[in-house]
Amino acid sequence: MKTTPLTPPVAAHVSIDEARLLVNDYLSAYFVEKISNAALLHPSYARLWEYTYALFSAGGKRFRPYMTLLSYQAAGGDRPLSDIIPAASAQEILHLALLVHDDIIDRDTVRYGVANIAGQYRQSYAGTLNQEDIEHYANAAAILAGDLLLSGAYELTGRLNLPANDVVEATKTLSEAIFAVAGGELLDTESAFSGNPANAESIAAHKTASYSFIGPLVMGAKLADAPEQYIEHLTAFGSNLGIAFQLQDDVLSVFGDSSITGKTTIGDIREGKRTYLTEQFYRLASNEQKERFKRLYGKVTISEADAEVVRTLLQDSGARQATHERISTFSIRAAEALSELQLRPPYHEAFEKLIVLSTRRVT
Amino acid sequence: MKTTPLTPPVAAHVSIDEARLLVNDYLSAYFVEKISNAALLHPSYARLWEYTYALFSAGGKRFRPYMTLLSYQAAGGDRPLSDIIPAASAQEILHLALLVHDDIIDRDTVRYGVANIAGQYRQSYAGTLNQEDIEHYANAAAILAGDLLLSGAYELTGRLNLPANDVVEATKTLSEAIFAVAGGELLDTESAFSGNPANAESIAAHKTASYSFIGPLVMGAKLADAPEQYIEHLTAFGSNLGIAFQLQDDVLSVFGDSSITGKTTIGDIREGKRTYLTEQFYRLASNEQKERFKRLYGKVTISEADAEVVRTLLQDSGARQATHERISTFSIRAAEALSELQLRPPYHEAFEKLIVLSTRRVT
Repeated sequence: MKTTPLTPPVAAHVSIDEARLLVNDYLSAYFVEKISNAALLHPSYARLWEYTYALFSAGGKRFRPYMTLLSYQAAGGDRPLSDIIPAASAQEILHLALLVHDDIIDRDTVRYGVANIAGQYRQSYAGTLNQEDIEHYANAAAILAGDLLLSGAYELTGRLNLPANDVVEATKTLSEAIFAVAGGELLDTESAFSGNPANAESIAAHKTASYSFIGPLVMGAKLADAPEQYIEHLTAFGSNLGIAFQLQDDVLSVFGDSSITGKTTIGDIREGKRTYLTEQFYRLASNEQKERFKRLYGKVTISEADAEVVRTLLQDSGARQATHERISTFSIRAAEALSELQLRPPYHEAFEKLIVLSTRRVT
Repeated sequence: MKTTPLTPPVAAHVSIDEARLLVNDYLSAYFVEKISNAALLHPSYARLWEYTYALFSAGGKRFRPYMTLLSYQAAGGDRPLSDIIPAASAQEILHLALLVHDDIIDRDTVRYGVANIAGQYRQSYAGTLNQEDIEHYANAAAILAGDLLLSGAYELTGRLNLPANDVVEATKTLSEAIFAVAGGELLDTESAFSGNPANAESIAAHKTASYSFIGPLVMGAKLADAPEQYIEHLTAFGSNLGIAFQLQDDVLSVFGDSSITGKTTIGDIREGKRTYLTEQFYRLASNEQKERFKRLYGKVTISEADAEVVRTLLQDSGARQATHERISTFSIRAAEALSELQLRPPYHEAFEKLIVLSTRRVT
C-alpha cells in the first residue's frame, strides 16, 4: 500500500525575486569595486566601468542566475545561497559580455531602452572627433568592456568560496558555454549572407541554449556535486528548453504583442532575418507566396501595412503553425528530460515552471 | 672564511628555444582540438579556428610563456615543465586575444606580415557583400575570435594538472592582468583625442608591463608557491622591465633599423601617436621646434624626407636622449628588484638577460 506522508517534504526553493535581489546586490558591489580600482588608473577607465554598471542596472530579469541557484538546490546542494551567488552572478556577467559584443556586431546602440556602452561612448566622444571616428572609438571601448566582462565571468567563478576542485569544474562549464555561444553567434551572423548557412535549430542550440540554459543549470548542479548521469539529463533539459525558447522568441519578434514583449515586431522583417519561421516558410509556401515574400522581407523601408502582408504570408503558408508545433516538440522533450531528473517537490514543479516561462505564448 | 664549493649549483634552466617548441607543440594540439570540435557545429565555425591557428602560427617569439617557465623554475618549482606548459601557453593565448582585438581597434589587417583574422575574413567574404559590410562582418568574426582566445586563456589555466588551489590562484593572476591591460588599452586609444590623456609611462605600465611581464612572471612564481614578499619583488621587476621595454619600443618605432626590427619607422609619425618620446619633446622643445613638429607629426601623407625632419626634431630637442635616460632608470630599477629576489645561479643570470633582451638598443 502506498502511504502518503502527513507532512510532505516542502523545502522552500529560491524564488526568482530573491535571486534577482541577491545577484543585484552582489554585482552592484562588484561594479563599485571595479569602478574604484579603475579610478586608481585613470578617470577614463572608471568611466568605462561606470557605463558598464549603468547598462547592467538598466535591465535584465536575472533569469540565468536564478536557474543556477535553483539548479543547485534541486540537485541537493545545501550550502547557504551566498556561497553560490558568485557562480550565479558569473552567468549574468557572461550574458552582459555577450550582449555588449553582440550589439557591436548587430550595430545596435540601444539596449534595455537606454544607450548601450557604445551608445554611451558616442555621446561622450561627440564633438571631439568626426562621426566615423566617434563610432569607431565607441565600438573600441565597447570591445574592451565586453572583454572585461568575459574575464569577469571567470573572475567571479574563481571567487567561489568552495572546494577548489568545484571551482575548477565550474570554470570548465563556463568555457564550454563560451565555445558554443561564439560559434552560434558566428553562424547566426553569417546566415544572412552565407551560401551554406547553418539551420535555425542548430543556431538556437548553440547561440541560445548553450549559455542561457545549459550553462546556468549545469553550473548549479555541478556545484552540488550532481552525478554525471544527472548532468546529462539536465543538459538535455536545457538544450530542448533553450531551443524552444529561441523559436518562441522568433515567433514573438514577428507576431508578438509589442505592449507585452516590449519589442517591435517589424525589426526581423526589416532586417530580413533568417529564422526557423522563415525556414518553414520556404519549405511550405507556394511559389507565388515566395515571390511576394521575397519582395518584402528584408526591405529596410518596409511599411507597417507591408509588414502585415509578410505576417499573413507566414501565417497562411503554415510556417507559423509549423513553428508552434516544433516549439511544442522541444517543450515535450524538455519535459521528458525533466522526468529523468526525478526531482523532488517542489523542484519538479519549479522546473516545470521554467518550461512554461520559456515557451509561454503571448500571441 | 667563505668557502667556494668545488661544484657550484648548475641546475639547467629552460631555454627560450625549448620554451618555444614546448608551447608551439602544446598549442598546436589545442588548436587542432578546437578546429575539430568546431567542425562538429559547422564548417564555418571550423574556419574561424583555422584562421586563428594560422595567425598563431605566423609569428610570435613565445617570450611570455618562456618567462612563465623560467620564473617557475627560478622560484624553486621542481615539477616537470609539462605540468606548467598550460599556464605558459595561456600567456601566449591571452597575448593573441589582445592582438586580435587591438588590431580591430587600430584598424590593422596585417600582423606578423600576413593577414590577421579580420584580414583573412575580408578575403573570404569578398564578393558576397558590399565593402562596408565585408569590413564590418570581418571585424565581427575577429571580435568572436578574440573572445574565444580570451576564454581560452582561462580554459588552459583550468587544465593545469596541479593542486586545485594553485589553479584558482593562477586564474586570479590572469584576471588581474586583463583588468590592467584593458585599462591601458583604453587609455592608449583615448590619448589620441582626450583632453586629459594618461601619461605614456602609466599607459606602458598598464598596457604592456601588466600582461607581458608581470602576468607571465607572477604566474610562474605562484605555481611554484613563492612567498608573498617574493611576488612583490617580482612584480616590481616585471613592472619596471615592462615600462623600459615599452619606452624602448617607442624609440625603435621612430629611430629603429627596419632591417632588424622588421617594423616601419614612419607608422607612429604618420599616426601622430602620443608616446613618451613626444611627451618629452613637448617638455623640452623650443616653440619654433614645436611649431614645425605639429605641422608634420600625424600627417597621413607625410614623406620620408619630412619624417626625417621629425626624427631630427626629436633628436635635437633632447627628447630622444631623455627617453633613453628614462629607459636606463627603469632598467636600473628592474635590476634593483632583481637583487631583492636573491635568485640562485643560473637564474639570476637568466633574469639579467631578460633585462638585456627587453631593453637592448638596436639604434
